[in-house]
Amino acid sequence: MENFNFYSPTEFVFGKGRASEAGTFVKKHGGSKVLIHYGGGSAVRSGLIGVVRKSLDDAGVAYCELGGVRPNPRDTLVYKGTELCRKEGVDFILAVGGGSVIDSSKAIALAVPYDGDFWDMYSGHPVEKALPVATVLTIAAAGSEGSGNSVITKEDGMLKRSTRSDLLRPKFSIMDPALTQTLPAYQTACGATDIMAHVFERYFTNTKEVEITDRLCEAVLLTIVKETPRVIADPDNYDARANIMWAGMVAHNNICGVGRQQDWNSHGLEHELSGLYDVTHGAGLAVIMPSWMEYVHGHNVMRFCQMATRIFGCQMNFEDPEATALEGIKRFRSFLHSIGMPINFAELGAKEEDIPKLVEKLGIGDGTRAGFMELNADDVAAIYKIAAHAEL
Amino acid sequence: MENFNFYSPTEFVFGKGRASEAGTFVKKHGGSKVLIHYGGGSAVRSGLIGVVRKSLDDAGVAYCELGGVRPNPRDTLVYKGTELCRKEGVDFILAVGGGSVIDSSKAIALAVPYDGDFWDMYSGHPVEKALPVATVLTIAAAGSEGSGNSVITKEDGMLKRSTRSDLLRPKFSIMDPALTQTLPAYQTACGATDIMAHVFERYFTNTKEVEITDRLCEAVLLTIVKETPRVIADPDNYDARANIMWAGMVAHNNICGVGRQQDWNSHGLEHELSGLYDVTHGAGLAVIMPSWMEYVHGHNVMRFCQMATRIFGCQMNFEDPEATALEGIKRFRSFLHSIGMPINFAELGAKEEDIPKLVEKLGIGDGTRAGFMELNADDVAAIYKIAAHAEL
Repeated sequence: MENFNFYSPTEFVFGKGRASEAGTFVKKHGGSKVLIHYGGGSAVRSGLIGVVRKSLDDAGVAYCELGGVRPNPRDTLVYKGTELCRKEGVDFILAVGGGSVIDSSKAIALAVPYDGDFWDMYSGHPVEKALPVATVLTIAAAGSEGSGNSVITKEDGMLKRSTRSDLLRPKFSIMDPALTQTLPAYQTACGATDIMAHVFERYFTNTKEVEITDRLCEAVLLTIVKETPRVIADPDNYDARANIMWAGMVAHNNICGVGRQQDWNSHGLEHELSGLYDVTHGAGLAVIMPSWMEYVHGHNVMRFCQMATRIFGCQMNFEDPEATALEGIKRFRSFLHSIGMPINFAELGAKEEDIPKLVEKLGIGDGTRAGFMELNADDVAAIYKIAAHAEL
Repeated sequence: MENFNFYSPTEFVFGKGRASEAGTFVKKHGGSKVLIHYGGGSAVRSGLIGVVRKSLDDAGVAYCELGGVRPNPRDTLVYKGTELCRKEGVDFILAVGGGSVIDSSKAIALAVPYDGDFWDMYSGHPVEKALPVATVLTIAAAGSEGSGNSVITKEDGMLKRSTRSDLLRPKFSIMDPALTQTLPAYQTACGATDIMAHVFERYFTNTKEVEITDRLCEAVLLTIVKETPRVIADPDNYDARANIMWAGMVAHNNICGVGRQQDWNSHGLEHELSGLYDVTHGAGLAVIMPSWMEYVHGHNVMRFCQMATRIFGCQMNFEDPEATALEGIKRFRSFLHSIGMPINFAELGAKEEDIPKLVEKLGIGDGTRAGFMELNADDVAAIYKIAAHAEL
């Protein structure tokens, strides 16, 4: 196991009806003027924004509001939010929504106290300061409610880039599984796929002898495999929703990933897809991740056998381990298909002829991307090609 | 799933050689005058206290010291430490040792700012204030490095009682698995047993549909079952030590236990054993826990089948589930025996004729103890009786 630091100071406030406590927790964590940041009209129409407003009123906390966050959140709204916060003297950002809203909130939190263009922090500049952020989560997916990560898309050129700092970990996150019961099945499945991907990016490692984090990763994966079909079949299954929601946090606050080399190439390759076509991140991952697995499985067949047997219930073929590895990948893709995810470029709305453009935007040049298996530009093109033609 | 709050703000500093960073982290978390609290001479002889002193010196942080913490730490030393801290103006407690040292440190942290007898807080009075505590951990066992719990024994009457508050969660915990390599096999095995018990107390629940926390519990248990025999066979196996150490934290910071009813009756019954005979907590748990399981298994046979098949590799007997449940409990006891734990009163050094005294000290009277299965005084006596006579 490698040396590591792990710091997850977010206070999680989990369960039915907890959104009405938002004001109490903002006050507890020192906020006096809040920006309520949200997405489309659904948070308003559902009455959730109203509940949050009332709880802030009851706690005597002032606020202003900015909606309009889109999936794959844009730098343009971050600039707008930053200006608003500075003008209004905001000292606390409350994200009411899913991963995109939280990521946009984190970007604003970075931008307000920064003396320059916040995009610097998404281009390698270290994070030194941020306003406190908190969340009222409405979809189990990104894990941004417990992570220090944020992903933003620069509208000029549709560049999707990320940053990470413990300063961006939310002060508190209110997680009410009931809020996810009204999500369309497709969004629910995209979220489940994103959660699985967060775990697989940690699971496929070259670090030896990491039993505890292997087993924690498998705990999350087994939960998603069990619970997702249940919520697709019955959107009102609160307990299944609750299991998925807590699994989504565990998947990405890094308790499953400490002390081991991680991969993140599937996320990298997907970011170019959702950057170019504006597709949902989880859907892009459903197309990329099994294709990445097929391309790299020979790098460590036994690790794929571990996945196949422990997660997807395959019988180990001791005479032909590679058959087990490939069977596991096949079952993963079938699972994704069964919950309504696309599995190839056509189903996603991507085009094979764009592969050179996708590879170019990744910016590998003559170099390689580190990870479970090091990838050069040809490797990446080959993975996109598998993804273009994938079938059950 | 039940509603819950989860807050684990401890900064974990994990890996080889990290103790030399103690001073840096004390300073980061605001300490200016530290009490270094430790146990016997081994922390001094091993040079660990020297490393900590030097790191505090290097960081320009003042300190005083108090050793002498014993297993099942006593109130008497807490009073002594409290007096010392008040006299010296200590504002930060640094525990260097295992669960007993950390628990004693937490008690001192409560006592210093409290205007009364700190034992109040171990008798039901809520915790309102505490000095910051941090740890340099030397054994994987109690999970006190990540928990808000503390257990203290009142010397007058050997009463063992506990308290809990998020205020007692350590600010940081330095966890170097290499420090555990010099532990005797018996202490290592006691620690592993304690870790398993922390999980089982959460695993045996009446809450339905808690797949994610079930699976997280199983992740820790599978890790301990795999890694403990390896460190018993080869005490210098760093990776196995590291897996056990991180598992020990995950087992008890409550990420495995949120949203579900928990039990804790085995701990309750064991506390009277270690209170009366001053045996190691883990050894007492090895005698009590399988006996408790035998007594209560009929309350939910299927849950014990889940344990038997998922943790101990039993084949499910679909014609006779109870046989599977009992086989799982048998394998758990055999596992404990295989790592050198006692499995009955004689091996522990307890006496069957003391059972009435043990039951009386538990203070149930005509009432019951809540939990997975409600227990009255007769139930408890029956469990102690099974423990007295247990065999492989």
